[in-house]
Amino acid sequence: MVDTFTATRARSARIGDEVAKHPEQFRVLTGERPTGPLHLGHYFGTLVERVRLQNLGVETFLILADYQVITDRDTMANVRQNVHGAILDYLAAGIDPTRTTIFVHSVVPALNQLLLPFLSLVTEAELHRNPTVKAELAASGRALSGLLLTYPVHQAADILFCKGNLVPVGKDNVPHVEQARVIARRFNERYGPVFPEPEALVTSTPELAGLDGRKMSKSYGNTISLGMTEDETASAIRKARTDGDRRITFDPENRPGVAGLLTTAALCLDSDPLTLADQIGDGGAGRLKQVTTDAVNSYLAPHRRRRVELAANLDHVRDILRQGNARANQIAETTLGEVRVAMGTVY
Amino acid sequence: MVDTFTATRARSARIGDEVAKHPEQFRVLTGERPTGPLHLGHYFGTLVERVRLQNLGVETFLILADYQVITDRDTMANVRQNVHGAILDYLAAGIDPTRTTIFVHSVVPALNQLLLPFLSLVTEAELHRNPTVKAELAASGRALSGLLLTYPVHQAADILFCKGNLVPVGKDNVPHVEQARVIARRFNERYGPVFPEPEALVTSTPELAGLDGRKMSKSYGNTISLGMTEDETASAIRKARTDGDRRITFDPENRPGVAGLLTTAALCLDSDPLTLADQIGDGGAGRLKQVTTDAVNSYLAPHRRRRVELAANLDHVRDILRQGNARANQIAETTLGEVRVAMGTVY
Repeated sequence: MVDTFTATRARSARIGDEVAKHPEQFRVLTGERPTGPLHLGHYFGTLVERVRLQNLGVETFLILADYQVITDRDTMANVRQNVHGAILDYLAAGIDPTRTTIFVHSVVPALNQLLLPFLSLVTEAELHRNPTVKAELAASGRALSGLLLTYPVHQAADILFCKGNLVPVGKDNVPHVEQARVIARRFNERYGPVFPEPEALVTSTPELAGLDGRKMSKSYGNTISLGMTEDETASAIRKARTDGDRRITFDPENRPGVAGLLTTAALCLDSDPLTLADQIGDGGAGRLKQVTTDAVNSYLAPHRRRRVELAANLDHVRDILRQGNARANQIAETTLGEVRVAMGTVY
Repeated sequence: MVDTFTATRARSARIGDEVAKHPEQFRVLTGERPTGPLHLGHYFGTLVERVRLQNLGVETFLILADYQVITDRDTMANVRQNVHGAILDYLAAGIDPTRTTIFVHSVVPALNQLLLPFLSLVTEAELHRNPTVKAELAASGRALSGLLLTYPVHQAADILFCKGNLVPVGKDNVPHVEQARVIARRFNERYGPVFPEPEALVTSTPELAGLDGRKMSKSYGNTISLGMTEDETASAIRKARTDGDRRITFDPENRPGVAGLLTTAALCLDSDPLTLADQIGDGGAGRLKQVTTDAVNSYLAPHRRRRVELAANLDHVRDILRQGNARANQIAETTLGEVRVAMGTVY
């Protein structure tokens, strides 16, 4: 795995150069499951990169993968609120709906239909070997559902319906892009050329730790949501677990909470955690938290200002989604038409 | 299994009575994979029953499950020809397209989309337990594809998209109806009442043996297609494997080929194989084959006459399919709309 990943990373760097030179040759598919509010981890991990690609001139599709909410849970509660919230954050962060298509995958039946022919192209053994599915299964503590087992194939449909050829991912999701490549290749070999083989563009941003030093994740409750107020942010940071040592040092292994706050503050201040730790010196957890709170609130202030303005007019958000869904449907129907011709299912 | 099946059969008999009394309370979903021409086994096993239910006044949906062709093979070759051929046989057998909706499932994206939420309602362990999937996997001699593993869930979508509550099946397919019941129940419990729990109506017709005494199946090459000419029928029957014993007896275990012909002829003559064997007496295989050929050709003559007339105007067949697809799409979109409201995925 390590060698494969190193190779993927090197390849990714070359592709990154290509994208900068010829943005018009790429189409990006990226997005997330609307399981909760977007947080600082999303901001630095993916939102900044999406805006960068869009502004380079790469056509981008941003999917809200609502069916994938129920791969590992039984409820769709708050899904609408989460979808609207994510769109507010996209727009506030600089996503431009005239250049980026924002859509929800449950609203695009022709995309979802691609799951059927694609499932015929993979074996059950291959589905079981996907390391990310294994990890998510373990984390869920539940029996493996048919949807969790097959969701990488559904994700291939998400990528391929729009002939996306570039997928920005963290390293956990490299196997999914590989699965999409395999499906595209097998489909083309069996029925004729319809799909590109998408490339992974591995994110170079370091993973942002949560307030407890663990991975920042909605399910750990250790996140700073982009939509929080300044007071809510201060309160969340105040509750972060640190320690009694007044000397602030950057020691992720032994002082995960302190390190998490230092990393967060450093990113927002465009500094680095070691320098910041020196600057805080003997200020203790109180001073560290104050510095972090100020850094986050000040960094996010323009984002939040735009977000509040946008939230005042949800009709505008719904219009953007409606337009994105319409465009996604149009493209999905065209692709499904090509799939029908290739497979000979035109009657 | 035996007890479960006996119970299913008893239940089926009660439902059969209900259907006769209140046909308007039932909606039938039935159909097949367009893997080859329909044959005598289909005729006596399902076509007759479908026409009977239709004529009782039960609203019927007849699905040509084209994606399920690739559950256990790599090619869609001849699928269009097989679809058109099946429709010719439906019409020739008495299916009335103004009362029965004939459609192809690859043309109904909203039906196929139901696979997504349904997959979240079953575990991978349940998928593996399905005895029909196991048998089909063994028969295919291939690795288990994702589509073969999940096709009972897709079949649940085929049944439930139109809120079918009655599924005429042979005993092999009872587990699929049970899977659809489980999915309907779990969906309703989790998201609110949308789907009926469909009932199996187990066919009482004995299984028709093929020309070699094995199960009549396109893959064994032992079938008499409904669309054959009289000469093709005679030629196929001439090639049937029998034995040198001139005395014709009905002994399925020791003389499977002879028994297969006797059963076929008896069904076409509305007689029974034992009586027929006595009548042929010492006539040998030659006489048996002549009797069988005459019986089949004479029985199928009106069907084939209508079939030839219909085949002269394939535009009419395409129109019927277009209308059936349109109606299936309309119903599927309505159902998917209800599913969206129930799941809260309306944005």
